[in-house]
Amino acid sequence: MSATYSRITEQLDDHEAAVESGRQKIDWASQHMPICSTLREEFEASQPFEDQRIGMAMHVEAKTAVLVETLAAGGAEIAITGCNPLSTHDDVSAALDAQQNITSYAKRDLPEEDYYAAIEAVIDIEPTITVDDGGDLVFRIHEEHPELIDGIIGGCEETTTGVNRLRAMDEDGALDYPVFAVNDTPMKRLFDNVHGTGESSLANIAMTTNLSFAGKTVVVAGYGDCGRGVAKKASGQNAHVIVCEVDPRRALEAHMEGYDVMSMRDAAPKGDVFLTATGNTDVITREHFERMSDGVVLANAGHFDVEVNLEDLSELSTSVTEVRDGVQEYELPDGRRLNVLAEGRLVNLAGPRALGHPAEVMDQSFGVQAVCVRELVGAHETGLPDRLLTAIRDRFGRANGSRAVANHGYEDGVHEVPDVLDREVASIKLDAENITIDELTEEQQEYVSSWQHGT
Amino acid sequence: MSATYSRITEQLDDHEAAVESGRQKIDWASQHMPICSTLREEFEASQPFEDQRIGMAMHVEAKTAVLVETLAAGGAEIAITGCNPLSTHDDVSAALDAQQNITSYAKRDLPEEDYYAAIEAVIDIEPTITVDDGGDLVFRIHEEHPELIDGIIGGCEETTTGVNRLRAMDEDGALDYPVFAVNDTPMKRLFDNVHGTGESSLANIAMTTNLSFAGKTVVVAGYGDCGRGVAKKASGQNAHVIVCEVDPRRALEAHMEGYDVMSMRDAAPKGDVFLTATGNTDVITREHFERMSDGVVLANAGHFDVEVNLEDLSELSTSVTEVRDGVQEYELPDGRRLNVLAEGRLVNLAGPRALGHPAEVMDQSFGVQAVCVRELVGAHETGLPDRLLTAIRDRFGRANGSRAVANHGYEDGVHEVPDVLDREVASIKLDAENITIDELTEEQQEYVSSWQHGT
Amino acid sequence: MSATYSRITEQLDDHEAAVESGRQKIDWASQHMPICSTLREEFEASQPFEDQRIGMAMHVEAKTAVLVETLAAGGAEIAITGCNPLSTHDDVSAALDAQQNITSYAKRDLPEEDYYAAIEAVIDIEPTITVDDGGDLVFRIHEEHPELIDGIIGGCEETTTGVNRLRAMDEDGALDYPVFAVNDTPMKRLFDNVHGTGESSLANIAMTTNLSFAGKTVVVAGYGDCGRGVAKKASGQNAHVIVCEVDPRRALEAHMEGYDVMSMRDAAPKGDVFLTATGNTDVITREHFERMSDGVVLANAGHFDVEVNLEDLSELSTSVTEVRDGVQEYELPDGRRLNVLAEGRLVNLAGPRALGHPAEVMDQSFGVQAVCVRELVGAHETGLPDRLLTAIRDRFGRANGSRAVANHGYEDGVHEVPDVLDREVASIKLDAENITIDELTEEQQEYVSSWQHGT
Amino acid sequence: MSATYSRITEQLDDHEAAVESGRQKIDWASQHMPICSTLREEFEASQPFEDQRIGMAMHVEAKTAVLVETLAAGGAEIAITGCNPLSTHDDVSAALDAQQNITSYAKRDLPEEDYYAAIEAVIDIEPTITVDDGGDLVFRIHEEHPELIDGIIGGCEETTTGVNRLRAMDEDGALDYPVFAVNDTPMKRLFDNVHGTGESSLANIAMTTNLSFAGKTVVVAGYGDCGRGVAKKASGQNAHVIVCEVDPRRALEAHMEGYDVMSMRDAAPKGDVFLTATGNTDVITREHFERMSDGVVLANAGHFDVEVNLEDLSELSTSVTEVRDGVQEYELPDGRRLNVLAEGRLVNLAGPRALGHPAEVMDQSFGVQAVCVRELVGAHETGLPDRLLTAIRDRFGRANGSRAVANHGYEDGVHEVPDVLDREVASIKLDAENITIDELTEEQQEYVSSWQHGT
Repeated sequence: MSATYSRITEQLDDHEAAVESGRQKIDWASQHMPICSTLREEFEASQPFEDQRIGMAMHVEAKTAVLVETLAAGGAEIAITGCNPLSTHDDVSAALDAQQNITSYAKRDLPEEDYYAAIEAVIDIEPTITVDDGGDLVFRIHEEHPELIDGIIGGCEETTTGVNRLRAMDEDGALDYPVFAVNDTPMKRLFDNVHGTGESSLANIAMTTNLSFAGKTVVVAGYGDCGRGVAKKASGQNAHVIVCEVDPRRALEAHMEGYDVMSMRDAAPKGDVFLTATGNTDVITREHFERMSDGVVLANAGHFDVEVNLEDLSELSTSVTEVRDGVQEYELPDGRRLNVLAEGRLVNLAGPRALGHPAEVMDQSFGVQAVCVRELVGAHETGLPDRLLTAIRDRFGRANGSRAVANHGYEDGVHEVPDVLDREVASIKLDAENITIDELTEEQQEYVSSWQHGT
Repeated sequence: MSATYSRITEQLDDHEAAVESGRQKIDWASQHMPICSTLREEFEASQPFEDQRIGMAMHVEAKTAVLVETLAAGGAEIAITGCNPLSTHDDVSAALDAQQNITSYAKRDLPEEDYYAAIEAVIDIEPTITVDDGGDLVFRIHEEHPELIDGIIGGCEETTTGVNRLRAMDEDGALDYPVFAVNDTPMKRLFDNVHGTGESSLANIAMTTNLSFAGKTVVVAGYGDCGRGVAKKASGQNAHVIVCEVDPRRALEAHMEGYDVMSMRDAAPKGDVFLTATGNTDVITREHFERMSDGVVLANAGHFDVEVNLEDLSELSTSVTEVRDGVQEYELPDGRRLNVLAEGRLVNLAGPRALGHPAEVMDQSFGVQAVCVRELVGAHETGLPDRLLTAIRDRFGRANGSRAVANHGYEDGVHEVPDVLDREVASIKLDAENITIDELTEEQQEYVSSWQHGT
Repeated sequence: MSATYSRITEQLDDHEAAVESGRQKIDWASQHMPICSTLREEFEASQPFEDQRIGMAMHVEAKTAVLVETLAAGGAEIAITGCNPLSTHDDVSAALDAQQNITSYAKRDLPEEDYYAAIEAVIDIEPTITVDDGGDLVFRIHEEHPELIDGIIGGCEETTTGVNRLRAMDEDGALDYPVFAVNDTPMKRLFDNVHGTGESSLANIAMTTNLSFAGKTVVVAGYGDCGRGVAKKASGQNAHVIVCEVDPRRALEAHMEGYDVMSMRDAAPKGDVFLTATGNTDVITREHFERMSDGVVLANAGHFDVEVNLEDLSELSTSVTEVRDGVQEYELPDGRRLNVLAEGRLVNLAGPRALGHPAEVMDQSFGVQAVCVRELVGAHETGLPDRLLTAIRDRFGRANGSRAVANHGYEDGVHEVPDVLDREVASIKLDAENITIDELTEEQQEYVSSWQHGT
Repeated sequence: MSATYSRITEQLDDHEAAVESGRQKIDWASQHMPICSTLREEFEASQPFEDQRIGMAMHVEAKTAVLVETLAAGGAEIAITGCNPLSTHDDVSAALDAQQNITSYAKRDLPEEDYYAAIEAVIDIEPTITVDDGGDLVFRIHEEHPELIDGIIGGCEETTTGVNRLRAMDEDGALDYPVFAVNDTPMKRLFDNVHGTGESSLANIAMTTNLSFAGKTVVVAGYGDCGRGVAKKASGQNAHVIVCEVDPRRALEAHMEGYDVMSMRDAAPKGDVFLTATGNTDVITREHFERMSDGVVLANAGHFDVEVNLEDLSELSTSVTEVRDGVQEYELPDGRRLNVLAEGRLVNLAGPRALGHPAEVMDQSFGVQAVCVRELVGAHETGLPDRLLTAIRDRFGRANGSRAVANHGYEDGVHEVPDVLDREVASIKLDAENITIDELTEEQQEYVSSWQHGT
């Protein structure tokens, strides 16, 4: 157990009030997360995680807490900390920590040293499963605690950035246990990134600035899932959208959608609001700041706070003032003012009123997390069930089948989430919404799989 | 000065901190209100309001403060109070009150008695001009202080509800000075109601509930300007929109837009979020509550807190709990929970994080307010200038011309804002956005006004 | 009967085949025009047009024919001709002419002389009612046959252009019988112009050129009802839309909708497709052609063929070739090719595959036409019924009431369609779509009309 | 040369007029297909297809002709026929056939026997490359002419249905040469299916029926790329969209987009227009027809004419009449009329005014076709160039790399189009549109590929 870091309830003066406040937030989220609720009932009955220790590093707020409690309901012992210094809600953290088999170290606005001490504290439970948002746990275990790897069944990763880091490790042969790329699964990408990031980024900007989008020119950097969500929702609020991209095909997609497409250099003087969603670094830099209009708003919907280069901006500026809660105004020598939201961190998580993604979209990606943890444990204990062997073979064909399936679970490396699991989560959601869909008849199944039908 | 009520800075313990905080909010809004900024420069130079006393009852927050300061810059003495018990920002009120020729009585969450005492305090300055949002000043002056009417040049009214009240007074021959229906002017209706109410209502709901709109069924009651703004923006966030209306033509418009249209009775069991924007009373009542699903959200984007019948709901419910800041959960005997936002008051003004309409859209309606005050004073002093006589005749034709124009100003009653003023504000805004538009050539002007062109 | 011009069936070689083909077209349209069908049943029973002679100059195609037959079912004798040389469907014209109390002179692609001879032939029946699309009948009767005016009860006008011409006449005191501005009624403007012109213009362009709109830059000249319909639908097909306007407020509306707004001069080099919808002349001229890209498409959705200045374009060009049915390619000296659709006439009426507006939207404006004709006859015979006196007073207030209502019908001049009639048509349509809407309770009616309700 | 079937120009009475008409159509399409134009210039210079014989079975109309001429410009000898009895434009076919190294057998509305005779005639040239739309050539060669397979370098397949058939063959080990799944490449799927099918299906329905979409309920069966294109564009024309699906995740996607989602059984009584886009059979059957309203429109945007079960419908009906060109009205015993467009064949290819997909979107998928043919020949002649080996390994990873790359070209079976080729086509298009995009700096490339960056 970490000598240098203690659980959240030991750090708070009035932890009982915090627990109560956090409990209320979690209950509200839970009401709007039907997938996790359904799975929680299943896990309570079947106790799939008995004897498992799950280490988690995620944005600790109400929705994540619902996932944590869903896993805990299945019998796991859980230790959790934050994955971003500014995204933790201390009351939610406390409400989790107050439960018997959950320990939370997450605290908002920690100094960097304590941030990593908290991660160490989570690792101290010697997890059998890791659940990450950004890869910090996997990375630190490999670097600092390789001796734990043998005891780890597998992991789940929530974000694009984390998956990119893990794939790079995997390419280098340096990833020594199996990790599901939850981020890449359609149920995550299609809803969380597009709808969740899109809606919540814009709502946070609106509520932080008291500005509207109608008639504004919104420059979206990156036309991946997050970027297209932001572009689509901004357009749906009657903004004029400019998209900047580095990939020709994505650029063409944006163009065919009706958006203006140009380089950031050309977009800089035209934009009123700039939103980065690339996952890359140095997307908006000195040459762009120099060309922007007075009063523009700069925000980040990517992962790390490197997309808007604040060092460049600081160097250019004569003063920096917090003119509103969450708004830093950088004044340039000629009097122009550039307003940076949430210090360039994720605007929908680190902003002053930030609540993170909406509950319903997190329900979908956390539902995938939950079934993936179940899958890792199940595959480890029993080898893969026949149902999954067949499903995986159907999906990945002969070439991939051998790689994905091991005797006693999944091979080391990054794995796509098996499609049957992803669809299972979709079906749970449709049921919760009382939506009935069609089913293929036998004739239709045969028709689709047959190639003997002519014109 | 009212014996029974004192100005805001006298009521606050730390009024200096409040003034500073309010000042910062006003400066931010001012940055994003180019129309008012342009007019302020004009007024500072020409001092059109020397010797005028302007009484105002409005939502006292940062944008309104920009209008107040714009008018004050023109030489007026101003007294202001709130028009809604929950919409006042005390710090903004204090920052206004700290200025030489402005007195503010607005304070948040006043008991009803004090609310009216503050209105009386404003009336005590014996205003020559009134600026209302809801008609409280005009109404109270006519009822309680008819002796002041002779000294009043005219007034301006901001909202639909206020204009409706004034028109009813006018019909009864009971409105004894001229009032501009600023609410009805295109620059107000087209932008403030549609874009302002639409965007800010949804952003407030999103940030109060942490819910998303994608895939939600949003029931919009009323398809006037506000309702169609809400419907359009909700649809632009991928909600499924149901519209309820009482007017067949508006209902048909909504239907032709692609929305579902049905009675509230039929919509009740289908909706996830209900937003009223009718200006009427008892839009959602017992028979609707009884048919709603567990977990629905109810909010009001109309004017008064009578659209959702909370008495009905209270009678039906076994308990009422504040489950989140700004969310009252009413629990029904069968366990269903209906969540009411902002106690049924305007969700974008009275909610816990409410900032009101975005700055840019308020800039447009407040720009019209400012030129209307200028017009009232100018017409009173000089009679109507030729330019306006012509413009009014052009617009209203022979039948109306005589009514709108008086010897020394406007006749008593409700007046449409002269179209030249409204267009003036539009032009100021386009200039501020660096947008150049076409101009009719002489040939084109002749073509349009001529009727001798054949097929 | 005109000595100089004969009815359509006498002009066609195989008029029986034409009648059959036209009959089929009319039956199809009739299936999709429930408002006219409902009114037809009413008129068949009540025979309101016994002894009336209705002269019509309209686009003679299937939907218009449904209106003609609806009026004929009410007992009228009808003579009709075209209002545009290229919009007539000869078979539909023949099918009308084949009926007992209908005579049609409309024929496609007539020389100008015959076009006017056909109008004269219609006037020969000495109409008691005129129904115009563009004002040709009213204009010609006033110029050439003033002796007929005494026998005319009134008229209806379908388009913006026609209403503009009539208002100009009215201003000059030169309009000597009452005409309903059907064009201005909400049921016409909101649906026909926005949805009808919007959808059918784009579908005609797509089918004439085999081009798509996704990713195209579409320049829309004019942001009136037609222009905003075109802009909205083009945007809904993923075009990038530029709007050109002369009115600052409309320009601002377009800007706030998210469109690019600029002068035609700036738009000329950016556009792929140019659509004029201004009702004015010389909207696209030499200076714009000179700046356009190779391969652009030019089309008109306004009324007359003067919006795109083809004389300018001809003078600039080295050759003009019909490269596709309905596409004239103008080649400039430097090799650039500008493609003009339908010779600059209304692209959704005069194009090679043109079917005009969709049946359902015409049903709405023709429904208004039908009840307006009924109203003219009814008011003439009986004076205005009490119901209408009240309704008109409610709507137009004290000032206008006296003008709109005469002892034995409507005064001379242009009249707005009484709102009760317009709403009647909306209600018929909602019934046909099985849509039930809410009704105001007595309490709600009282609330709206009362002004004694405080905050 | 086939003894039983002759080229198109020998079958036409006035083939010279046909050639001229076809030439004009091809020239128009060529103007709007900048990708093919760019590649044509490249091929003319490099003559990559010298000594190659390309057999093609595609929809023979103007855009396809541009692809044919692009390939011919590279030195190939080409024989082509149709892939659908109703989609051929005889004049375009004749214009192709009139060229030196192109022979066309395509003719509209052939009897089934001749349809297959024409395919045989194409096979008679002993192709070294096949280009299919639906798989007919590949399938027939394998069944009837296996002796030709040794001489075949590879093939390209244009559609979903064709690729499904080929994958089924591949699964059975029955596909004996490599075929690129052009259909599956992003440049095809993202634009052709979504924008091309979406826009052209709706424009064809509008122009065949003269109906509008505003306010209509459009039921879209299948939410794949085509279905979501149709849904998106219908919604963009203000239709109310219902989606029917069999896949829970796609159904959920449609729901989260804001569409109504339900079973076809529930949708049947609600729809005004039904559009199938599933690629499957029996999507709308007896049980659905029985529940539909009078006057509904039924159309197919999938591949074969089996999605709407016309046998079921015929059995139910008392009569079938062609009430408009391209509209079959089926009358049910109770008088309801169901209108089937284009006999249930692809409505945007087989309808009476059908021009197929817009030129620009076909330019994109045909651009991919052209570079794929170039790739097949190049890989065969030289083995795979290093550039491609690297690119393929990058994309497909270690597992797939070995399969995709052979010593002297591609292995037998279905292949994804190498991503570098697809992006090459995107870049050509962006250049043609004068769109400049950003490029990754070295630092950014390193950042993305590195995993050592922390929070």
